[in-house]
Amino acid sequence: MSALQLIERKRDGGHLSAADWRAFVDGYVADDVPDYQMAAMLMAVFLNGLDDAETVALLDAMLAGSATLPRAAGDRVRVDKHSTGGVGDKVSLVLAPLVAACGVAVPMISGRALGHTGGTLDKLAAIPGFRSDLPLDVARAQLDRLGCVLIGQTAEIAPADRRMYALRDATATVESIPLVAASIMSKKLAEGLSGLVLDVTRGAGAFFPDLERGLALARTIVALGATHDCPVVALLTAMDRPLGRACGNALEVEEAIHALTGDGPPDLMIVTYALGAEMLVLGGVARSTAEAWPMLEAAIASGDAARRFQAVIEAQGGNPGVVDDPAALPQAPAQGIHHAPRDGVVAAVEPRTIGRGIAALGGGRRRVDDRVDPTVGFSIGVAPGTRVAAGEPLATVHARDAAGVATGLAVLASAIRIADEAPAPLPLISHRVTRAGVAPYVPPSAGT
Amino acid sequence: MSALQLIERKRDGGHLSAADWRAFVDGYVADDVPDYQMAAMLMAVFLNGLDDAETVALLDAMLAGSATLPRAAGDRVRVDKHSTGGVGDKVSLVLAPLVAACGVAVPMISGRALGHTGGTLDKLAAIPGFRSDLPLDVARAQLDRLGCVLIGQTAEIAPADRRMYALRDATATVESIPLVAASIMSKKLAEGLSGLVLDVTRGAGAFFPDLERGLALARTIVALGATHDCPVVALLTAMDRPLGRACGNALEVEEAIHALTGDGPPDLMIVTYALGAEMLVLGGVARSTAEAWPMLEAAIASGDAARRFQAVIEAQGGNPGVVDDPAALPQAPAQGIHHAPRDGVVAAVEPRTIGRGIAALGGGRRRVDDRVDPTVGFSIGVAPGTRVAAGEPLATVHARDAAGVATGLAVLASAIRIADEAPAPLPLISHRVTRAGVAPYVPPSAGT
Repeated sequence: MSALQLIERKRDGGHLSAADWRAFVDGYVADDVPDYQMAAMLMAVFLNGLDDAETVALLDAMLAGSATLPRAAGDRVRVDKHSTGGVGDKVSLVLAPLVAACGVAVPMISGRALGHTGGTLDKLAAIPGFRSDLPLDVARAQLDRLGCVLIGQTAEIAPADRRMYALRDATATVESIPLVAASIMSKKLAEGLSGLVLDVTRGAGAFFPDLERGLALARTIVALGATHDCPVVALLTAMDRPLGRACGNALEVEEAIHALTGDGPPDLMIVTYALGAEMLVLGGVARSTAEAWPMLEAAIASGDAARRFQAVIEAQGGNPGVVDDPAALPQAPAQGIHHAPRDGVVAAVEPRTIGRGIAALGGGRRRVDDRVDPTVGFSIGVAPGTRVAAGEPLATVHARDAAGVATGLAVLASAIRIADEAPAPLPLISHRVTRAGVAPYVPPSAGT
Repeated sequence: MSALQLIERKRDGGHLSAADWRAFVDGYVADDVPDYQMAAMLMAVFLNGLDDAETVALLDAMLAGSATLPRAAGDRVRVDKHSTGGVGDKVSLVLAPLVAACGVAVPMISGRALGHTGGTLDKLAAIPGFRSDLPLDVARAQLDRLGCVLIGQTAEIAPADRRMYALRDATATVESIPLVAASIMSKKLAEGLSGLVLDVTRGAGAFFPDLERGLALARTIVALGATHDCPVVALLTAMDRPLGRACGNALEVEEAIHALTGDGPPDLMIVTYALGAEMLVLGGVARSTAEAWPMLEAAIASGDAARRFQAVIEAQGGNPGVVDDPAALPQAPAQGIHHAPRDGVVAAVEPRTIGRGIAALGGGRRRVDDRVDPTVGFSIGVAPGTRVAAGEPLATVHARDAAGVATGLAVLASAIRIADEAPAPLPLISHRVTRAGVAPYVPPSAGT
């Protein structure tokens, strides 16, 4: 069956076999199937969908040519977290060393920012000297030694995904549940995981704002994990407002360090503990999330988690001094404060506006090869529901110059809406999705 | 609005403005929009369609960068014919010199074979020495002098279509009514026409086998013509069996010469006269098709049409002797005869099987750069409904060697089905489509 016939079948709503998907993806990686045929196929998939068996087949085809982080018999159990992304989402920076400090290895392969959402690799790049481009054997050795490595996708890991992802980005075929699910899992399963926790964001700043689509993505990824002996637990979390207070690469590293040293904002800590508790259970070091939660709190309180982050930074060439003194992170030269224009209550802190605002200040990407200024961003002191008085300082812009400050203040004026009443924000964590199905999220304290 | 946003809008079923289409197509021709973005757009158009205004806008965008055959005030009126293609369809070879002999100029730009249907350019290439790659100024001068020129699409004519057509062929986005209609008209309107006759085939061997889709294509092209002061008349003709007896390039040229010298098979002559009569009316040399029909018959009977074909062949470098002696055409070295396997009636002569059979013998293309053997093909002496006796010769294979003969005999055994009863074949010409709408086709004799 030729590439053309496979496109034709998917165009007409038909089903492709596992062998068909393997042939098509292998052909693409080998340059026998050109970009334009893959583009036509991706649009046909976007519009006509994939059934469950096809999604598994696509994932397997994408995994076939991938290098992995092989796990030997004596190696620690590995569990990772993936988030569908958001604004101010620095959870990975806190979670990876924290879970490692509790005895579960975290081989985190992250991506760069694109669009309005941030990327963990860009945040890490704000740490002077930090390298995320480790060779796989070096990464594996560090993972065994420190229980944590924070790297980017290499050319060997999921090469089909690497090219398909770039193509989807250029052909308006990104927001497809089966394509997103296969893309995520083709990278994560290369990590040799025993479990995966998925943070599926919802609300205006999320990749899939709509709850139903978020749940569908969670179910699809849970099902894909099950076909590869990798149990997946997904939590649906709120992204109708930024997470925490800091939005911008260096600012978020600073907030993550505060979180690791016991001074994190409550919403960030709750999401981090909730995800971390699932990881400890999946990794077999806790029997329940209720048992896991105090282990995580203890690793923060003892300084173990912060020291683990320091060791990882040092191992990856970064300046470990930033953990003791976050002022060693690069700082934006210009600041400006946004004040409340009226009395009232904060009705919204619009995450897309904030995310695009960071890019407008030079801290994000419009194209894959754009350079990112790590210092710029926003520190936002209010959240939806906060009561404010006219003239009260609400947020700070960090910019390269006075023009940047002006831009940033306009962004804040548009993003932070003050009204007489605020709609109820989304629950911070609303649902939990496992093989057993979708359930309302119950905090561990209530669950024991 | 970026190319990406335009793809996104069409993906989501939205409407693109004339300026949007112009920007997208201009960008494609200028290589700012890469093939993979056009491929994604084409698949989105295939699956979500274009409304009438968008189809006009796409056509205009495709025409914008095109060279034309300019028509000066004193030049003859030009009318052309386009067919959606079939098997054994040599109408163009007869019709163009015939209509020219009646005083209407025919600037015919034709295509090559691809898939199961033949291409006029490949048929012409069977005439020793014939060149269809004339420069546009030479073509225009010949058109003025002889009233007929038979050329291929050049790089200057509808360059957007040229590239989009090749891309559609490689991305399973060919059979889309708006894309087909815009593609046809972008070439035809470059000819400076005063009218166009469209032969829309239907039945198993047609591009759109289904009548409803054929009628929809006809209506779309009629509407596109109206927006460019080019009245279009479409006839729906039968392609549930090959047209005439000869199928294969040199064999079809031979049959076309017989038709021009008064010895054509009836089905070929009826379709040719019906299309030609519409052309003479559109060209203003007859007031009705009833008046036109005997003019066409007279041009055959007098030898004017055959002499016109001879002059065109000579002007384009071919051997004009083939008109007086078709044996001067290249001949296949090997022949074989297929005999009726049983008594009965011919239930089908399956045109796709025959068309693919020609390609299997080396007389068609699977890829754009395949070389075509002009000599191979089939001479089929029976049509659906013909009563046959076991052992009676039904058809001849013309092949390169004994292996080709065996292949061809197997094709014929599969394509010609003998049964106890035959289903009624499609009417040779069933509908006529104009600005006034769709009407049953009424032969001119009955119409006066």
